[in-house]
Amino acid sequence: MEPLDYHAEERSKASFDVEEMKIVWAGSRHAFEISDRAARLVASDPVFRKDNRTMLSRKELFKDTLRKTAHAVKRTIELNLSEEETHTLWFYVDQPAYANLHWGMFIPAIEGQGTEEQKQKWLPMAHNMQIIGCYAQTELGHGSNVQGLETTATFDPQTDELVIHSPTLTSSKWWPGGLGKVSTHAVVYARLRTDGQDYGVHGFIVQLRSLDDHSPLPGITVGDIGMKFGSGAYNSMDNGLLRFDHVRIPRNQMLMRLSQVTREGKYVQSDVPRQLVYGTMVYVRQIIVSEASCALSRAVCIATRYSAVRRQFGSENGGPETQVINYKTQQSRLFPLLASAYAFRFVGEWMKWLYTDVSKRLQANDFSTLPEVHACAAGLKSITTSATADAIEECRKLCGGHGYLSCSGLPELFAVYIPNCTYEGDNIVMLLQVARFLMKTISRLVSGKMPVGTAAYLGRVEHLMQCHCEVQRAEDWLKHCIILEAFEARSARMSVACAESLSRFSTPEEGFGEISADLVEAAVAHCQLIIVSKFIEKLQQDIPGKGVKTQLENLCNVYALSLLHKHLGDFVSTGCITPKQGALANEQLRSLYSQVRPNAIALVDAFNHTDHYLGSVIGCYDGNVYQKLYEEAWKSPLNDTVVPDGYDEYIRPLLKQHFRTARL
Amino acid sequence: MEPLDYHAEERSKASFDVEEMKIVWAGSRHAFEISDRAARLVASDPVFRKDNRTMLSRKELFKDTLRKTAHAVKRTIELNLSEEETHTLWFYVDQPAYANLHWGMFIPAIEGQGTEEQKQKWLPMAHNMQIIGCYAQTELGHGSNVQGLETTATFDPQTDELVIHSPTLTSSKWWPGGLGKVSTHAVVYARLRTDGQDYGVHGFIVQLRSLDDHSPLPGITVGDIGMKFGSGAYNSMDNGLLRFDHVRIPRNQMLMRLSQVTREGKYVQSDVPRQLVYGTMVYVRQIIVSEASCALSRAVCIATRYSAVRRQFGSENGGPETQVINYKTQQSRLFPLLASAYAFRFVGEWMKWLYTDVSKRLQANDFSTLPEVHACAAGLKSITTSATADAIEECRKLCGGHGYLSCSGLPELFAVYIPNCTYEGDNIVMLLQVARFLMKTISRLVSGKMPVGTAAYLGRVEHLMQCHCEVQRAEDWLKHCIILEAFEARSARMSVACAESLSRFSTPEEGFGEISADLVEAAVAHCQLIIVSKFIEKLQQDIPGKGVKTQLENLCNVYALSLLHKHLGDFVSTGCITPKQGALANEQLRSLYSQVRPNAIALVDAFNHTDHYLGSVIGCYDGNVYQKLYEEAWKSPLNDTVVPDGYDEYIRPLLKQHFRTARL
Repeated sequence: MEPLDYHAEERSKASFDVEEMKIVWAGSRHAFEISDRAARLVASDPVFRKDNRTMLSRKELFKDTLRKTAHAVKRTIELNLSEEETHTLWFYVDQPAYANLHWGMFIPAIEGQGTEEQKQKWLPMAHNMQIIGCYAQTELGHGSNVQGLETTATFDPQTDELVIHSPTLTSSKWWPGGLGKVSTHAVVYARLRTDGQDYGVHGFIVQLRSLDDHSPLPGITVGDIGMKFGSGAYNSMDNGLLRFDHVRIPRNQMLMRLSQVTREGKYVQSDVPRQLVYGTMVYVRQIIVSEASCALSRAVCIATRYSAVRRQFGSENGGPETQVINYKTQQSRLFPLLASAYAFRFVGEWMKWLYTDVSKRLQANDFSTLPEVHACAAGLKSITTSATADAIEECRKLCGGHGYLSCSGLPELFAVYIPNCTYEGDNIVMLLQVARFLMKTISRLVSGKMPVGTAAYLGRVEHLMQCHCEVQRAEDWLKHCIILEAFEARSARMSVACAESLSRFSTPEEGFGEISADLVEAAVAHCQLIIVSKFIEKLQQDIPGKGVKTQLENLCNVYALSLLHKHLGDFVSTGCITPKQGALANEQLRSLYSQVRPNAIALVDAFNHTDHYLGSVIGCYDGNVYQKLYEEAWKSPLNDTVVPDGYDEYIRPLLKQHFRTARL
Repeated sequence: MEPLDYHAEERSKASFDVEEMKIVWAGSRHAFEISDRAARLVASDPVFRKDNRTMLSRKELFKDTLRKTAHAVKRTIELNLSEEETHTLWFYVDQPAYANLHWGMFIPAIEGQGTEEQKQKWLPMAHNMQIIGCYAQTELGHGSNVQGLETTATFDPQTDELVIHSPTLTSSKWWPGGLGKVSTHAVVYARLRTDGQDYGVHGFIVQLRSLDDHSPLPGITVGDIGMKFGSGAYNSMDNGLLRFDHVRIPRNQMLMRLSQVTREGKYVQSDVPRQLVYGTMVYVRQIIVSEASCALSRAVCIATRYSAVRRQFGSENGGPETQVINYKTQQSRLFPLLASAYAFRFVGEWMKWLYTDVSKRLQANDFSTLPEVHACAAGLKSITTSATADAIEECRKLCGGHGYLSCSGLPELFAVYIPNCTYEGDNIVMLLQVARFLMKTISRLVSGKMPVGTAAYLGRVEHLMQCHCEVQRAEDWLKHCIILEAFEARSARMSVACAESLSRFSTPEEGFGEISADLVEAAVAHCQLIIVSKFIEKLQQDIPGKGVKTQLENLCNVYALSLLHKHLGDFVSTGCITPKQGALANEQLRSLYSQVRPNAIALVDAFNHTDHYLGSVIGCYDGNVYQKLYEEAWKSPLNDTVVPDGYDEYIRPLLKQHFRTARL
């Protein structure tokens, strides 16, 4: 028997080679194979089932996470997986767990900030998970501003120890994942005090729990910080709080690669360049951008498939209603998100190159590209995660009522995704950093300093300030050079306008505060330009496969023109385009939607998401939505009994008028 | 001892009479008193506590809802509350429950569509809650398009009965609140078939469960549809599914006010005008708009108070950091939402008048204003609920990391609020209805038909198409007439542009489908104009209280100018304002933020929200945020034990390398 496929007709309409597009999406055939195998491995293992996740109580959910984590470790050992395969397997387990922080933050912190001796001592234990660590930086009263942390680490020359202490309530460590109930160790960030002075924030390795019985060590108060957004989602993680009451650690547990305290209590900086930390930052942010494309593609896949199944209105002569994906209102909301998924995928891929490039330069003591790279990574982190968070919710809305059911997968995806907008740099703070870079770049133009990389276009600022968009017909908007120049001109003009505004204030700092909302908008314009330009660069490459490049051309144009429409005020009020040209862009966009429409299902199939990874009854591959919704409903805990618990106490007395009688 | 108040200094800075503003917000002194008393009654009753809600399992939460509902009924009887007081008490219990649907949908359906005889039979039982009813309209495969429902009600002349049946899987009733586990009866919407014909969708009263033991009656399959978005939130409600297998009901349980089936099976329409249903629709949508202002004000109150407590960056010489509410980026995101809360409040209040007016007219058989009123109610429902949903999430983001904790109150508020965007008319479908009205209004202008009410400005379309905004200095934007004309011109020009586009298609329907995204934007412009104009009208009233009117002036201007900034593309590309004037509006906006800033805390105090209603540790009245966050954390279920459940099975073996040893 043929397997059921309600999307078969949609799939047959695609005008491109889906298998080739899967390779493009994955980045390479090798990456595709690793990813495909890991996804199937997880999907086929009953321990990793997650369809019941939103129904578990907090304790059950947490225990489920411990079980999955242990099982994943066991499987990676049994299957002798490579580091890349292991990472991919963790990714598909798709449940936030302490292990993410252990591997992703604790170990890298020691690798980056530890001396050779420290690395030799701690890393083997950490790699074997004989110790489990977390990253204890943020405090109850201190998030983005690391320099404002209050926890102290005071050197005691008598005993050659550092005394870690939480002097105030607001200095309680707050949020670190894995801290609440699991971690045996932490890298703790605290203000170093020695020699009568405060040397600012440094990292220290601190043991928190006994390796024998897991009880907190003396002087340590540690616990879970409580429930978080949504059901399931990040509640699988034991984000924790931590207070120190004069906890003593040996001096050599200060991470001493960049600076150290001597036996005598002298503070000595090493000659290792501080800029090295920026390399790690670019690395982490590249991963975040890459994961944005995963989360976004997941939401878009669900919404697209369900929009092809769902029918509403438009029935003629009693025939079936119209598939909602055929409505232009649906397309104009959905297809830009589909295009964004591809756009973020490619810019994430490009950031891998950027990281490699900056790493090489740092090793050669070349710090010249660092400001540009730093601004670029901060900005892309910010706008891809903000756009993805909004897009997941938009996809949920695009699924109508059923998107509100947990089994649509969208509520949990939203809840688990949104912290990306806050952690590793609050998105607004990030954009202000980009803006600072832009203002500095512009102020240096007069002295002839030419900007590099993603800011190179600002070197052509004179041209961009006076150029005119040449679009006369809607199709003109399909030319890459026209799109690119419009985005460059918009960004340059917004930045220059900000620079001019700043010059009218008595101090740059006052001005920066006052017009910060405008600066954020200028930063967004700059970052959107980067994404558009990297998409266009991708299209310069040789892309094999029947029709694949044509689809990507369409998506690139949809991405750029939908942004242009959304930010029409920027483009028109800076004079980059005329209102008439804006209307033509909109017209062209509508015609692009018609070209995307027949390929929409195949374009989301190309993400190669398994039904397990999607975790959505309405987004399943075969489109058998209603049958699955119906079956899923019966799993509701409330359906365990026909008559609900509470009927005798709270419903029957109402119906039988007992409350009234009692009163009469 | 003075009660603790971290916001005391903020409160002392306010330049207006908060108590008077409370009256303005409530609508009248009477409304304030009713509301104040009910809020305190609920807040002081331990049965209504809700701080543990997000930690309850689904079953516990549902039982908690049953308990609260029974208790609320009991209290209203004991205290002999009036209908208005009862309604307000339910509102402050703040937990979705079957009773909302019983009182809000089941009873009104019988009142509106039942004959006198039917009302006499069913309403007394319903009012006493001897029966509990729900409203079973939407189906698994059918939401917005009521005409597409599949459930059938076939008249059997042999027995004088109607046979209710679910012919397909997709015809299963899906979503009705209170249906899953509680309702004994339902108003079921089904296609009436009699006399060999399908007469379309009608309402029928159907008993679902035994009044003796609550078990479903023969032929009825009923259950809960499962988990929904978030923890707590709408999971307190038993949204249900329902299937009929040839269930027979007496003919007289068809709701027969508008049409009936005779004993012989003839379908007869009564002479009651069908337009009466629109009155109810306006009523329901007015409540939704009013509740939007409640939900929005709640989120804004939390975000504003916490923004005054939270400090980040900007410390000088080791002093305290800057309150985040002082940052222009924070103000430019928060204050427009504060202004929106007031704007929605006033437009909701105006809609009460609108409902009264249209009711009077309907009773006098005057249907002339109906299209305008209908479009207005649909549009305001759509844009206030969409804006509120987005605003709650924006407020959460404005609270940084801690906004992600359930105890901030914002996650649950978001989860419980967002269905407003879908139910009682999907928001995009609503805007398309507005757009149809606008297109019709414009097409009739040529024949000299003058539009009325909120569409009256379109009667001046010739002027609005060519008028020029006279703003020369930023302060000019404070003039009501200038703001109003800019919004009128924008809306008129967008509508006219759509009408011109439509005329280029071969049929209006084809054009309507093709440019529907543009039509939605035109509808948004029209609705925003309504809200701005009603805010301005409010300011024409006599508003007592020191400084109260000045504050409202500021908020009105913030509302209008922030919309103008957000939709700058509309205003500039239609030529309503120049780019320079757009920049001046932005400048004026910044200066308004500075005026709002010292009054911000008092402006949210004026909502008179109790800490119970807010349900937010970070938004509490006294501002003692960090102490409360710390205490709240310890209530986490994971903190019940020091060593977590699962340690022995899943953590200790990892640390002790048992998985590795096993393999070697």
